[in-house]
Amino acid sequence: MDRELLAWLYWKGVEGVMPRPLVRDFLSGFEWDGPVKLLAVGKGAGSMAQGAWEACRERVGEALVVLPPGMECPVPWRKVEGSHPIPSEGSLEAGEAALGLAREAGEGDLLLVLLSGGASALLEVPWPGITLEDLMDVNRQLIKSGATIREMNAVRKHLSRVKGGRLAQVAWPAQVVVLVLSDVVGDFLDVIGSGPFYPDPTTFAGALEVLERRGLLSFLPLRVVDHLRRGMAGEIPETPKGDEPLWWRVQHNILGNNRKALESMALMAREEGIKAIIYTSRVKGEAREVAQVLAGVAWEEAHCGRGPLLLLWGGEPTVTVKGKGQGGRAQEMALALALELEGWPGSFLVAGTDGIDGMTPAAGAFGDGTTVERARKKGLDPLDYLDDNDSHSFFEALGDLFIPGPTGTNVMDVALFYLP
Amino acid sequence: MDRELLAWLYWKGVEGVMPRPLVRDFLSGFEWDGPVKLLAVGKGAGSMAQGAWEACRERVGEALVVLPPGMECPVPWRKVEGSHPIPSEGSLEAGEAALGLAREAGEGDLLLVLLSGGASALLEVPWPGITLEDLMDVNRQLIKSGATIREMNAVRKHLSRVKGGRLAQVAWPAQVVVLVLSDVVGDFLDVIGSGPFYPDPTTFAGALEVLERRGLLSFLPLRVVDHLRRGMAGEIPETPKGDEPLWWRVQHNILGNNRKALESMALMAREEGIKAIIYTSRVKGEAREVAQVLAGVAWEEAHCGRGPLLLLWGGEPTVTVKGKGQGGRAQEMALALALELEGWPGSFLVAGTDGIDGMTPAAGAFGDGTTVERARKKGLDPLDYLDDNDSHSFFEALGDLFIPGPTGTNVMDVALFYLP
Repeated sequence: MDRELLAWLYWKGVEGVMPRPLVRDFLSGFEWDGPVKLLAVGKGAGSMAQGAWEACRERVGEALVVLPPGMECPVPWRKVEGSHPIPSEGSLEAGEAALGLAREAGEGDLLLVLLSGGASALLEVPWPGITLEDLMDVNRQLIKSGATIREMNAVRKHLSRVKGGRLAQVAWPAQVVVLVLSDVVGDFLDVIGSGPFYPDPTTFAGALEVLERRGLLSFLPLRVVDHLRRGMAGEIPETPKGDEPLWWRVQHNILGNNRKALESMALMAREEGIKAIIYTSRVKGEAREVAQVLAGVAWEEAHCGRGPLLLLWGGEPTVTVKGKGQGGRAQEMALALALELEGWPGSFLVAGTDGIDGMTPAAGAFGDGTTVERARKKGLDPLDYLDDNDSHSFFEALGDLFIPGPTGTNVMDVALFYLP
Repeated sequence: MDRELLAWLYWKGVEGVMPRPLVRDFLSGFEWDGPVKLLAVGKGAGSMAQGAWEACRERVGEALVVLPPGMECPVPWRKVEGSHPIPSEGSLEAGEAALGLAREAGEGDLLLVLLSGGASALLEVPWPGITLEDLMDVNRQLIKSGATIREMNAVRKHLSRVKGGRLAQVAWPAQVVVLVLSDVVGDFLDVIGSGPFYPDPTTFAGALEVLERRGLLSFLPLRVVDHLRRGMAGEIPETPKGDEPLWWRVQHNILGNNRKALESMALMAREEGIKAIIYTSRVKGEAREVAQVLAGVAWEEAHCGRGPLLLLWGGEPTVTVKGKGQGGRAQEMALALALELEGWPGSFLVAGTDGIDGMTPAAGAFGDGTTVERARKKGLDPLDYLDDNDSHSFFEALGDLFIPGPTGTNVMDVALFYLP
């Protein structure tokens, strides 16, 4: 019963952020008489392009849809397959094509950009002198060094001809409208897809500082470090900053994000007479630690006896993998929650809104106050599974996986707690 | 301005959980005509005893106050100094005295127990055959192995003659009333002071399982493992379980806890016309990870524009020390929050309610949306300080420490966020 409710609410949340109707509805009300060029890039590019097709295909001249490999393009526009999370030769082809499209867009043209998560790797052109292998090497070493996403972006944007607002520079003086499906905590437009059409707050000097802080200066290809040094010396133009007149012609609209998914769920719950609280759509941090806070709030509400109540959290926790098991962010979070919520009088669901969690067929998992006890009765030790990052096997053995299949959208993860 | 408000609210919260008036008021309304024996133990034993002295000193026959070393006893009752967090010879003297007191309490007597944090180490008697050194060794190895507090308690309770309800067994058939100042997330009575008067949910078998899981079976003194094995074989009586008639004569009252401190703050804020939200009094987990969730909620409220608003969290995060700096849970949490809340339009305070954070003279620290920027202008890198667990030096350099001095109570930590 409670699980049906949770799964139903999950789908209501996902429906609220489906890119196809969001794009279609936005463009149906959007007024523009001139010629339109279209660039769709990201994991949601196919369905976003479909929305545009339905709203205004007759006005679109040239169009380019950049998708992850193997994903079908539902519209008869030019399609290029990039790759994700590591850029490939396909990503370079996509990047060059996007540069061409932006370059050809002139005064009086509208460049319509449909941007979703994954765009950063799907679309890339390294600065002349830098190779694709260099970029991959830099990425790998930055990740290994423990660099934050902001630090990685500072470096990557300064090695690229498309990231950090560079595509907007090329598109000038065309009018640019970017419709965004956000898969980033806080919806930071300079972070989503590495902000190809957004002012870059980072600098060459900042990128070099990151390499120094992370101890990578001596380990990266010399031409990468040289490039950044020449940029710092003013020999290469900086990425465009926020005070340039360029931005008068660029407009971003966030059509879908995690908050919107949570609000859709809350709305449906309230229509069913269930009080709903949205705590935040900005959950970050190590999943097993974060789970302790969410569980703390769940226990407190149970003790205050305020049910029936739906507690909603969204965002994207991280998992530092130390074990050899199978799982993902959402399932690991669910396992850590189950451990904290033994005896709790409600049920919960943690799942990725894209329907995919890690390299598993599940989107997430259900849990309740009996999860741990049921596991122990089956001879499973939940702590062992958590230590081995093996949440998928754990929930599979219990029959508590949530497997909706790919949903066609992606606004990170949601956690729903239902307290009867 | 905002800092004055936050500090004022902190004090209002602390006032709501001051043990002396709480004990005095409770006992003033408590009806008992027979003789009373009194045992006060914990970091708050002095002020709790003072409350009892004021309410009913003429009815108290024998009394024992067990305090941390160097702490003054404000009442002329017998005082013994134990030690904390590692038990000492003084803790053994205190334990023997407490056993004597409980043994002498008979039918028709009231044993009044005033229990607060730290009691577990301040009061100890190892089971015959086990030495104080054994206990210290077990503690050290359990901590090093990463054992949870519940796992540590399962072992410790089964090596002790006072923990895990054993003192209640000895006190039977006297009536026992335990007044509690809780310093434990969730107010678990089997955890506070290792539950000397509370049913023990753990077993000898469970204690052995812990040692096995943590890989300690071959590394602990043989007589410790032998003792647990003999217990499992039924040669030593188990700690008392919840279904025994013994508990008909034992009653616990939680007079003060973290929730009560948060509620006192919320009440005062509301009287000042500031909306206040208590999220939970059960915050746990690694401070720098937990901070990301709390910051996520703070950002969300700021973006929803719902101020003026006071966001309240309580509990006890942990810090896994890897650096060499000076700090404590609250100050490290404040530093991690400052990093997440750069640009946030409000102010916050994280502090221990006891007025002491780690081995520093501060209780915690203030922060706001400018903390990180102000630090960078002074040449301080907040990330470096966080990596070195050096939050105290960081906030000292900024002049943002909160130093109220010892408050005389302890219900863990509080985090207050004020959004104008």
